[in-house]
Amino acid sequence: MDKTSTGDKMFDFKERLSRMARERLGVSEIGEMIALVAAKGAISFGAGEPSADIIPKDAVREAMKRAFESDDIWGYYHEDFGDEGLRGWIASRMKSDDMLPEWATADNILLTNGGGEAVSLVSEALIDEGSVVLVESPTYTESLLTFRKQGAVCVSVPSDDDGIIPEELEKIAAARRARFLYTIPNFQNPSGRTTPGERRIKILDIMRRYGLALLEDDPYHYLAYDGALPSSYLKLAGDDRRVIHCNSFSKIVAPGLRTGWAVIPPELCEVFSSLRVSSGLGRPLAIQKGVHEYLAGIDFTERVGRICAEYAKRRKVMLETIEKYLTPLGIITNRPAGGFFLWGQAPEEASGFDAALFSKHAVQKHGVGIIPGSAFYPAGSGGGRRAFRLSYAKVPASLMEEGMKRLQEAWKSFRP
Amino acid sequence: MDKTSTGDKMFDFKERLSRMARERLGVSEIGEMIALVAAKGAISFGAGEPSADIIPKDAVREAMKRAFESDDIWGYYHEDFGDEGLRGWIASRMKSDDMLPEWATADNILLTNGGGEAVSLVSEALIDEGSVVLVESPTYTESLLTFRKQGAVCVSVPSDDDGIIPEELEKIAAARRARFLYTIPNFQNPSGRTTPGERRIKILDIMRRYGLALLEDDPYHYLAYDGALPSSYLKLAGDDRRVIHCNSFSKIVAPGLRTGWAVIPPELCEVFSSLRVSSGLGRPLAIQKGVHEYLAGIDFTERVGRICAEYAKRRKVMLETIEKYLTPLGIITNRPAGGFFLWGQAPEEASGFDAALFSKHAVQKHGVGIIPGSAFYPAGSGGGRRAFRLSYAKVPASLMEEGMKRLQEAWKSFRP
Repeated sequence: MDKTSTGDKMFDFKERLSRMARERLGVSEIGEMIALVAAKGAISFGAGEPSADIIPKDAVREAMKRAFESDDIWGYYHEDFGDEGLRGWIASRMKSDDMLPEWATADNILLTNGGGEAVSLVSEALIDEGSVVLVESPTYTESLLTFRKQGAVCVSVPSDDDGIIPEELEKIAAARRARFLYTIPNFQNPSGRTTPGERRIKILDIMRRYGLALLEDDPYHYLAYDGALPSSYLKLAGDDRRVIHCNSFSKIVAPGLRTGWAVIPPELCEVFSSLRVSSGLGRPLAIQKGVHEYLAGIDFTERVGRICAEYAKRRKVMLETIEKYLTPLGIITNRPAGGFFLWGQAPEEASGFDAALFSKHAVQKHGVGIIPGSAFYPAGSGGGRRAFRLSYAKVPASLMEEGMKRLQEAWKSFRP
Repeated sequence: MDKTSTGDKMFDFKERLSRMARERLGVSEIGEMIALVAAKGAISFGAGEPSADIIPKDAVREAMKRAFESDDIWGYYHEDFGDEGLRGWIASRMKSDDMLPEWATADNILLTNGGGEAVSLVSEALIDEGSVVLVESPTYTESLLTFRKQGAVCVSVPSDDDGIIPEELEKIAAARRARFLYTIPNFQNPSGRTTPGERRIKILDIMRRYGLALLEDDPYHYLAYDGALPSSYLKLAGDDRRVIHCNSFSKIVAPGLRTGWAVIPPELCEVFSSLRVSSGLGRPLAIQKGVHEYLAGIDFTERVGRICAEYAKRRKVMLETIEKYLTPLGIITNRPAGGFFLWGQAPEEASGFDAALFSKHAVQKHGVGIIPGSAFYPAGSGGGRRAFRLSYAKVPASLMEEGMKRLQEAWKSFRP
């Protein structure tokens, strides 16, 4: 084939792309790093997903088998919000866990393709080009990408080890007209931080005074290792109804099932139903039914207890090995009360430290994967250069020490 | 609770909606009618989905069971395009059915949540607010909703029983700067029309001369009842690469599995991958693997032959009963060469006929469901008032006559 003539004739799609496709898309630094970790067969402190050995594969297999025996999973499902059984389970569980306000029922639960689709639908409903979205500093990469895709300008609110600093939030809320605040209040991704109750009240009060909505993303809710389960902004706001709550079964069942949910105020249900129709009708009902079958067949509290015991063990070993291998280097880390992550920061004296370069060095030369802090800040903001995320989720206790040793070696051999 | 004070305090989300949510969403008239048909227990000439008795439930159940035995379906799947096995099957099948150009391989196949998500992702990639999208007249409701949601102005190109009229297309292409033409070339939804080969060549030539992309939606491809399978615009365009092809397993396996695909030119693969990450990461891998297991275990040609024989029988009975019950009323219908649908039009003398009112009358008073033509035209265009869609897909031969009798009675008793 004559390449020149083909080249001459070929249609240039790049010239026809929408502004969204040309200007607003970004590549996930997490996705890139996970791919690199897999390619290198490295020990992964990178992945924010459940450990394969903790996923209840056999029980889910059995549940899915029962779900596929059903006769009503095969056609289009014109009840766009998804399987009624699973929505009922969620409503009832959230009620008994003090997460749901009076007004919310199963009718307000929308099942989604993981928590990510929930955040995406909320973005479509609330973001215009140029809309300001307030985010924690740092915050979850994929949500930043989703907000930006929809045209948002993300503004990082200074945060400390208790999450968003209310005084800083108020300054920004007063200066910039924003659409909503996005927060992961419990065992945050990436920092592991949890916002204490009294701060939540202050934050919600600021939301009220400046007329802002709040998007609560709570996938780590049940992974609490140090005591009582936290409540939710959704419940705290009560009749005020300014909170949309997103959640997911990815952490407590399995991410590959892509099953999450949002709690939507009644006045927005029609909007979300229409948004859903225009992105490929409903999601596979069999999977939703299977997740429900699984949940209905177990003692959920017992299951959560068992997962938490295992992850708490990994957290303990990670904290111990950090103490042994990273603390002597001057690296500062926090102690999360749950979830998968903790946040590492280079010492002051390591001037010019670049976590993105360090992460590549660590995986390529020393076979250990971490995610650089820059992944968790708005693109181009320069945030997170000196920080990185460590996950203990996928690293069994037996491998933790080896991983930390490698990270120490990587640090010592790193010449920026 | 004091309702007044609650009302005073309640956050007004409606005031904070994005322009997309406020101005660009519509409700599916198909969805509304299907719900009404279900509520009334009516005979449905409305539903454009496979007949429950034609879906290979047992074989799919077995295939899904095998898919869930797999160990790599549980975590996040960082290969965003979906299960490699299914993508390979699709590429190989399309190759052997003369649908795929030289440049396309499994790498260009993106698995989606039904064909609808494929159309939605293309819309995000190519539509800006105010972009003109050319559509057939009539065309598929949900695609119109998707284009409009993304900000498009949809312009209907006059069509006849052979699909789009090239001369009319050229006039519009010359007058308005459009982004792409959306076409369902085979056994179209809703009209049942197929565009003959010589027209496709003319239409593609117009696309070339005016620098337009073409979005080919081909879910009825294999439902050809009168002879050889058609080819594709994708193949016809060849190295020109201006066509994005969308397709689906909804009609040949089951819609509830929500598995479709798009064939994406190499230069757009990165864009589609990013769009996908921001709408909830990948789709459930187990389902894709299960569909592949099912397809790999059957003689596909034999399966398609069996489905086609059954639907062709239903088409035959519908055409016969139309002849008996509708033709005497002056109603004009066409004869589709495949797919699920045919297009009915009220006679000239029924002045002021409104298919939307007639459809409601038919389902409510006579227990038979059809979809009014207005559902298949851009909102507010006034198109399709005198027309309606009839589907033979879900009506077994034994019920067809009763349905047509009811439709005749509805017609006779209808006073607009």
